[in-house]
Amino acid sequence: MIETKGYAAYDPNQPLAPFNFNRREVGPHDVLIEILFCGVCHSDLHTAKAEWGGTQYPVVPGHEIVGRITKVGDHVQKFKVGDLAGVGCMVDSCQTCPSCHEGLEQYCEQGFTGTYNSPEKGMDTPTYGGYSNQVVVTENFVLKIREDQDLARVAPLLCAGITTYSPLRHWNVGQGHKVAVVGLGGLGHMAVKLAASMGAEVTVLSTSPGKEADAQSLGAHKFVVTKDPEALKQVRGYFDFIINTVSAKVSLDMYASLLRRDGTMILLGVPPEAPELHAGTMIFGRRSIAGSLIGGIAETQEMLDYCAEHGILSDVEVIDMHQINTAYDRMLAGDVKYRFVIDMATLEHVNA
Amino acid sequence: MIETKGYAAYDPNQPLAPFNFNRREVGPHDVLIEILFCGVCHSDLHTAKAEWGGTQYPVVPGHEIVGRITKVGDHVQKFKVGDLAGVGCMVDSCQTCPSCHEGLEQYCEQGFTGTYNSPEKGMDTPTYGGYSNQVVVTENFVLKIREDQDLARVAPLLCAGITTYSPLRHWNVGQGHKVAVVGLGGLGHMAVKLAASMGAEVTVLSTSPGKEADAQSLGAHKFVVTKDPEALKQVRGYFDFIINTVSAKVSLDMYASLLRRDGTMILLGVPPEAPELHAGTMIFGRRSIAGSLIGGIAETQEMLDYCAEHGILSDVEVIDMHQINTAYDRMLAGDVKYRFVIDMATLEHVNA
Repeated sequence: MIETKGYAAYDPNQPLAPFNFNRREVGPHDVLIEILFCGVCHSDLHTAKAEWGGTQYPVVPGHEIVGRITKVGDHVQKFKVGDLAGVGCMVDSCQTCPSCHEGLEQYCEQGFTGTYNSPEKGMDTPTYGGYSNQVVVTENFVLKIREDQDLARVAPLLCAGITTYSPLRHWNVGQGHKVAVVGLGGLGHMAVKLAASMGAEVTVLSTSPGKEADAQSLGAHKFVVTKDPEALKQVRGYFDFIINTVSAKVSLDMYASLLRRDGTMILLGVPPEAPELHAGTMIFGRRSIAGSLIGGIAETQEMLDYCAEHGILSDVEVIDMHQINTAYDRMLAGDVKYRFVIDMATLEHVNA
Repeated sequence: MIETKGYAAYDPNQPLAPFNFNRREVGPHDVLIEILFCGVCHSDLHTAKAEWGGTQYPVVPGHEIVGRITKVGDHVQKFKVGDLAGVGCMVDSCQTCPSCHEGLEQYCEQGFTGTYNSPEKGMDTPTYGGYSNQVVVTENFVLKIREDQDLARVAPLLCAGITTYSPLRHWNVGQGHKVAVVGLGGLGHMAVKLAASMGAEVTVLSTSPGKEADAQSLGAHKFVVTKDPEALKQVRGYFDFIINTVSAKVSLDMYASLLRRDGTMILLGVPPEAPELHAGTMIFGRRSIAGSLIGGIAETQEMLDYCAEHGILSDVEVIDMHQINTAYDRMLAGDVKYRFVIDMATLEHVNA
C-alpha cells in the first residue's frame, strides 16, 4: 500500500482536517501521480457536508488534479515518469457499456467511479480525492497536460472546464449564436471564456450589477441585470443557448422565456430543491431544457489541448491546504474569483 | 356581413347554448367554408371554462374544422367553390416575421390569430370557431382535404394530428427509435398511430391496465402500467422519445428517468399548475425536455397528405351539436375514444 497524506471531512459539521490513509499499489495499468495543484469545486463542499446524501466519512474531496507522474505500471503506454498529468471527476468506469464505448464514460451505465466518495473498482475501499499528496489512477483516466502552462490555473479545467466545454461542443455552439451564462462562478467564468473563444456572442445574466466589469474582462460582450425588468425585456426571446451553472433553486421559467424559438437552456448545476417548470414556456417557442454532465475522457483531453492552444486558463486564487475551511466559507459567500486552487506543496508542512 | 349560426359559451359556468353572430364579408383573399364537421378539443373546454384565463365571452370554440367551400374571393388562387377545405388552430398571422417566413406561423412573433377567442386581424371583433355552420378564412390558412375520406375522422387531424405529427418530424422520429406515448386521448391516440406509421417502436405508458387492448389496436407495440414499479423498472433509460400529451400536473422526473441518454421528452399539454423538474434527472443522461406547439400551415398540409396516403384517421365518436355539453362532461371523465366530432348538419335543427 502507498502511504498518503491528505485532508478529509470526518463528518458533515466539522472543519476538514488532516487524514493519513493508504492508496492501492500501482498496478500494471496504473500511474502514481504526485499532486501539485487541486481545484476546489462546489461539489467538494456539497459532498463534505453530505448535502447530496451518500457521503462516506472520512471523505477526501478534490477532482481538479494536476500533478507529475512518479511511477508507472508495467503495461502503461501513454505516460512515463516525469510527465505532467491531470485527473478529473472520474478515475474509472465499466469500459464495456455503449456509453463507455462511445467515449462518454460520464454516462457509464454501471455508473463511473468518482475520484472521491465512490467504491474503488473491484475493491471494498472508497476512492479518495485530490486534497492529498499523491493518487493512483488507471492510465485510461489520466489526461496529458502540456508543459509551460500555469498549472494552478490548469487544474480547474479538469471539472469546471470540461463541464462547460462539453455542452458547448455537443450543441455545436459557435459563430452566430447568442449565448447567455447564468452564474459567474467556477463554471460560469469558464463558460464565458470558452463560448467567446468559439465565436459566440456571450451575455452574462446576473443579479448583481457589480459584476459587469468582471464579466467584460472575462470576454462577455453583454451584461444583463436580471432584477431589472426593463433590461430583461430587451433580451426576451433572444438567446440560442443559456448555460445555467447555478445550483440554487432558480426560476427555470424566467430564464426559459429569454430563449428564442428552438433555443436550449443547459443545466449544469444540481439544486437540492427542484424548481418548477411551466410546460407553456417550452411549448410556445419549441424550447428545450437539457442537462449535461462533465465530459468523457477523450473530450476532456480535447478540451485541455484546446485551452492550451487558445491560452485559456481558469482565474484562480491559490491557497494553502490549511486554508481550505476558510475557502469553503468564502465560496459559500460567493467570494472567490473564480476558483480556489490548493497548492499541494503546502500539505508537506501539515502534521496529521 | 354573413349571418352565422353557432354554439357559444356565454360564461365559464353555464352550458354552451345557441348563438347567432356575423362573420366578415368574403374579402379578395378569403374563402367561405360551409362547416361539415368540427372536432372537440380539450382546448375548447379549457377556453369555454376560462381555465387558461383570457376568455372573451361569448366564445364559439372549435378548431378542427372540415367543410366545403361555398364562395371564394376575387384573388383566391388555391381553392374553388365545391372544394373540400380544412381549418385548424390558426386563421392568420403577421406573415412577415422570421417564423412566418420559415413556415412556422404557430410561433409568429406577433402571435398568430387563433381560430377562436383571438382578435380578428385588423378588426375589433373576436374570432369565432368551428362550432358553427360557416367560417370565413384567408386562403393561406386553409388546408386542402382529399375527397373519398371519412371526413368526420379527418377533422381531428387539424389539431390533434398536426400537434403530434410536427414534433415527430422535427425530432426525426422513425425506424430504430423507441417512443413512449403518455396519455391515450385525442393527441395520444394520434401520436401512437403516427409514430408507428413512421417505423418507431411505440409504447403506451398508462395508469390504467384496462387500456392495453386499446393501445394495441391503435398500433402500439408495448404497454406499461406506470403504477407498477416492476414494469416501470423494465423501461428505465429505455426511450429515445417520450411524447407527453397529458395536460394535468404529472411527474416530469418519473417520465424523464425512462429516457435513455440523449433522449427527449416532448411536452404537448399545458397543465394549469407547473410540475417540478429535478436538474439531476436531466444532467445524469444529458436528457432534454422540450415543448412543441401544433405545426405550421405547410406542415399541416404535409400531415394531411401523409395521413391520406397512409390511411391514418382519428378514431371518433360523432355527436349532434346539442350534445356538446354532455360531450364535455364525458371528455372530463376520460370517456371518449378518442375524439368527439360534431356533425354540423345537426346545427340546422337548432333554433337560437
